[in-house]
Amino acid sequence: MEEESKSLPSKDNFSEWYNELLMTAQIMDVRYPIKGVYVWYPFGFSIRKKVYNMLRNLLDVDHQETYFPMLIPKPELLKESEHIKGFEDEVYWVTHGGLSELEVPLALRPTSETAIYPMYKLWIRSHADLPLKLYQIVNTFRYETKHTRPLIRLREITSFKEAHTAHETWDDAEKQVHEAMDLYSEFFTKLAVPFIVHRRPEWDKFPGADYTMAFDAMMPDGKSLQIGTVHHLGTKFAKTYDITYEDDKGERQYVNQTCYGISERCIAAVIGIHGDNKGLVLPPNASQTQIVIIPIVFKKDEGGVKDACQKVKELLRANDIIAVIDDADERPGAKYYKWEMKGTPFRIEIGPRDLKNNSVMLVRRDGKKESISMDGLPETVRNKLMDFQTELLNVARDSMMSRVKSCETLDEAKQQIENGWATMPWCGDKACGLEMENVVNCKLLGEAHTIKGAGKCPVCGKATDRIITMARSY
Amino acid sequence: MEEESKSLPSKDNFSEWYNELLMTAQIMDVRYPIKGVYVWYPFGFSIRKKVYNMLRNLLDVDHQETYFPMLIPKPELLKESEHIKGFEDEVYWVTHGGLSELEVPLALRPTSETAIYPMYKLWIRSHADLPLKLYQIVNTFRYETKHTRPLIRLREITSFKEAHTAHETWDDAEKQVHEAMDLYSEFFTKLAVPFIVHRRPEWDKFPGADYTMAFDAMMPDGKSLQIGTVHHLGTKFAKTYDITYEDDKGERQYVNQTCYGISERCIAAVIGIHGDNKGLVLPPNASQTQIVIIPIVFKKDEGGVKDACQKVKELLRANDIIAVIDDADERPGAKYYKWEMKGTPFRIEIGPRDLKNNSVMLVRRDGKKESISMDGLPETVRNKLMDFQTELLNVARDSMMSRVKSCETLDEAKQQIENGWATMPWCGDKACGLEMENVVNCKLLGEAHTIKGAGKCPVCGKATDRIITMARSY
Repeated sequence: MEEESKSLPSKDNFSEWYNELLMTAQIMDVRYPIKGVYVWYPFGFSIRKKVYNMLRNLLDVDHQETYFPMLIPKPELLKESEHIKGFEDEVYWVTHGGLSELEVPLALRPTSETAIYPMYKLWIRSHADLPLKLYQIVNTFRYETKHTRPLIRLREITSFKEAHTAHETWDDAEKQVHEAMDLYSEFFTKLAVPFIVHRRPEWDKFPGADYTMAFDAMMPDGKSLQIGTVHHLGTKFAKTYDITYEDDKGERQYVNQTCYGISERCIAAVIGIHGDNKGLVLPPNASQTQIVIIPIVFKKDEGGVKDACQKVKELLRANDIIAVIDDADERPGAKYYKWEMKGTPFRIEIGPRDLKNNSVMLVRRDGKKESISMDGLPETVRNKLMDFQTELLNVARDSMMSRVKSCETLDEAKQQIENGWATMPWCGDKACGLEMENVVNCKLLGEAHTIKGAGKCPVCGKATDRIITMARSY
Repeated sequence: MEEESKSLPSKDNFSEWYNELLMTAQIMDVRYPIKGVYVWYPFGFSIRKKVYNMLRNLLDVDHQETYFPMLIPKPELLKESEHIKGFEDEVYWVTHGGLSELEVPLALRPTSETAIYPMYKLWIRSHADLPLKLYQIVNTFRYETKHTRPLIRLREITSFKEAHTAHETWDDAEKQVHEAMDLYSEFFTKLAVPFIVHRRPEWDKFPGADYTMAFDAMMPDGKSLQIGTVHHLGTKFAKTYDITYEDDKGERQYVNQTCYGISERCIAAVIGIHGDNKGLVLPPNASQTQIVIIPIVFKKDEGGVKDACQKVKELLRANDIIAVIDDADERPGAKYYKWEMKGTPFRIEIGPRDLKNNSVMLVRRDGKKESISMDGLPETVRNKLMDFQTELLNVARDSMMSRVKSCETLDEAKQQIENGWATMPWCGDKACGLEMENVVNCKLLGEAHTIKGAGKCPVCGKATDRIITMARSY
C-alpha cells in the first residue's frame, strides 16, 4: 500500500484531476469489479470517520441513532405510488436465496422511508410519542445507468445519513425543516464547504414530498453538487402507511413528517473544492492528522532534534491537537510530497537552527510559512488551525459567489453556466421552467432566499420578483 | 414509543424470556415484515454503539478501519471452491437492476473474503506492505432456513466486525491469531461475558481455513453461543486470489492470512447471561447510561432535593460517569421498574433524609442497596461501578464453570448437555467425533487448551489425552 511518487494532472482538468487524486491520495480504489462500486482505502475512511463523527455529534443533541433493515419487501416499497415512480428504474432486486426463488422479491433500500414508516405506524400511538427524531447511517443502493463517479454517483452509497422525524402538525414539521437546515449549515460550515440552499422546483422535489430544500455546492468546474436535502413530507407517507397519533382530545390524527439526508458527497465537496495540484487540502476538522512533524536531521542528530519533535508531539496531543512524527528514513522532500498529497493541514519542521532559536517552522498546506516560538506553541497552533479553517471557507465562499451571476437572457445564461451558475427571473410556471432548462441545457436548482431580484421571465415575459438559479449539475 | 408496564416471563423459560425482553426493554423490534430481519430500537442501538465503540478502540491500536462493497460479483464469490461450498445455500442473489436483468448476478456478502482479497492482490506488492491489518463493521446476509432469532440467527447481520490480515509467513499469521485471541479475550472480559476458547474440529472450521479458534459463551439454557471466531487461513485464499509479495530476496511469495469476526451475538450474550426477571442487567461498560438519579420528593421539594440531584449529576458527569436524572411526573416505583428493565447499572435515590445525612442511597441493579456519603461521591461510585462490573463477570464465570462437567460415557454426556456442557476424551478421529455428535445429539465445540484430562475415546476405546467439549448449540 505504498504510495507512488507521481504528480497529478492540473486541477484545471477537474475531472481527470479528481479521479487521479482519489487513487493517488488513497481515498477510493476504483478497481473493484462492479461499475459504480468503489472501495474505501483506510486513509479515505479515516476522513469518512472524522466527518461522520462530527455529523453524529451534531445530530445526537436531539436525535437518536438507530438501524432499520436493508431489505424491503416489494409490496412495502410499492405502497407509496408517487415515491416508487421516482425510484423504480433504479432499484436492485434480490430474487433468490441460495438456490431457491423467493416468494416475495426484496429490494435493496434506495432510501429507507418504506422500511422505516411501517415501524413508525407501530411505534407512534399518542402525542406523547411526538416529536420522534431518528437517524441512521447506512449503505443504500441505486442501479445508476448514468456515468458513475466515486463519492458522487454510486451504485452503493456507503455512507447515507438519513434522518426521519414525525410531528403533530404541518407547522411543527416545518419548524423541523428549519432546524435541520440550521444543523446542515453548521455541518457544512465546519467542513469549510460553502453552499447555497435552494427550494427545488416542483418537478424536481423528492418523490412524495410537499417540498424539498437542497444544499448545493459549486465544484471547480462550475457544476453544482447537491450535498444535502431536507424534505417536508406533510401527511403523504403518514396516509399511505397509516401513521397516526391520538391528540389531546382523544382523536386520531395523521402525523406530519420530514426527512433529510447527507451522503459521502459531502466528502467529494471537501476534496473538490479545496484540493490543489499537489493533492488534497483538508480543513483541520476533516483530517484525522492535523499536524505532521518532520525532523530536519543532518548526519548526526545535532542538539537532539528527534527528542524535540517527540516533545512537541506530546505537547500538542496533550492539547487535543492530533500530531504525528514522520521519522522515516527518507529525504524531507519525499515526506513533504506525501503529506501534502494527503492534505494534512500543517507541517512543522524542526531542525538544529530552530532549536537554537527556541522556535519551529510552521508550514500551512497552502504553502504559507512562518517561524513560531516554542513558548505557547499549542495555543499558537490551535489559533492558526482555526484561522486556516476559516480562511479555507472564506476563500471558497468568495470563489463560489464570484461565479454566481445574474443574467438577463437565456443566451447569457448559457454562457455563464459554462463556468459557474446563472440567476434569472422566472415567473414560476413549470412550462417556462422546463423551457429554460431545455434552451440553456441546464438544471434549475430552484429559488434561494439569499438571492433577491426582479425582472421579466425570459420565456413568457411576465414581470416577477422570483429569481431562479441555473447550473450544470452532477 | 412509551414502554408498557408488563412483567416478563420467568428467565427459567429462557427462550420466551429472551424474546419478550428484547421487545419490552426496546432492544429489537421483531415485527419487521421479513423473517429473520429485525429493527434496532434506539435504546438497543445505544448499547450497540457503546459496545462497538469499545471494540473499535481495541482494534484501532494496530488495525485500520475501512469499507469494502456489499455486492460481490458471482464469479468472484465462486472462485474459492471450498469457501463457497460453505455458503452456497445461504447466499442472497441480486438478479435485477430496475426492470432489467443483470448480466452478472451479484451476491449480498455473506462475509467479505471474496470482496476484499481481490483488492489485497492489488494493494500488496512487497514485504514492506506487510503486515496489513484492516477491519470493517458492516451488514452481511445469510438466507437462513433454520429458526431465526433476534441478535442470534439473522438474515441480515447488521453489525459484523470482520478483520482481515496478511503476513509474510505462516508463523507470522499464527502470531496474529494469538494477538486476535488476546484482543477478543479483553473485549469479552470488558463485556463481562465469560467464554471458553475451542479449536473447532476439522469438519466444523471456517470454509477455507487451516484452523478455526472459536469463543463460546454459555447461555442460561446451557446451550453454547459462538460469539467470536479467529481463523488461520494459511495461503489458501492467497493462492486463489493470487495475493503475493516480493520478499527481501526479490522473490514472489504467497501471503499468509488470518481473519476474525464478531457480530451482534456479543450483545445477545450480555443480555442472555446477565438479565433477570426484572429485565436487562447491563455491565457499566455496555450501558450508555450508568447511573439514573431519582429525586424522592414529597408534596413540596423539601430541602432542595431536585437541586441536589442536579448537582450530583454534574459532579458525576465531570468525572466521566454517565448519569441522568429522571424527574418525570411519575411514582418512584414506576421509574424503578423502567430503569431496571433497561438494565441501568446503578440507581441513586435522593430524598430529604439523605440530604440531612449528607448522603445518597445507591441501589445496584442486582438489588444491593447502601447509603453512601456525598464526600468523595464520584470516586466511591466509580469504584463501585468497577466492582459491579467485576462481580458480574465472576458470577457468570462461576456459573458457567459449574455447568461444564467431565463425563465418561455418552449417556452421561447426553444427560449433562441438557443443562450445560460435557467434556470427554476423544481420540481425534473424525468418524468417532461424528458418532459422538450423533449419539449425544450435540455439537462438538472442539478442544480447549484450558481443559485438560485423559481417558478413553467413548467410541473406539483408544487411550487419549485429548479432551473435547460437547454442547447443544445456537
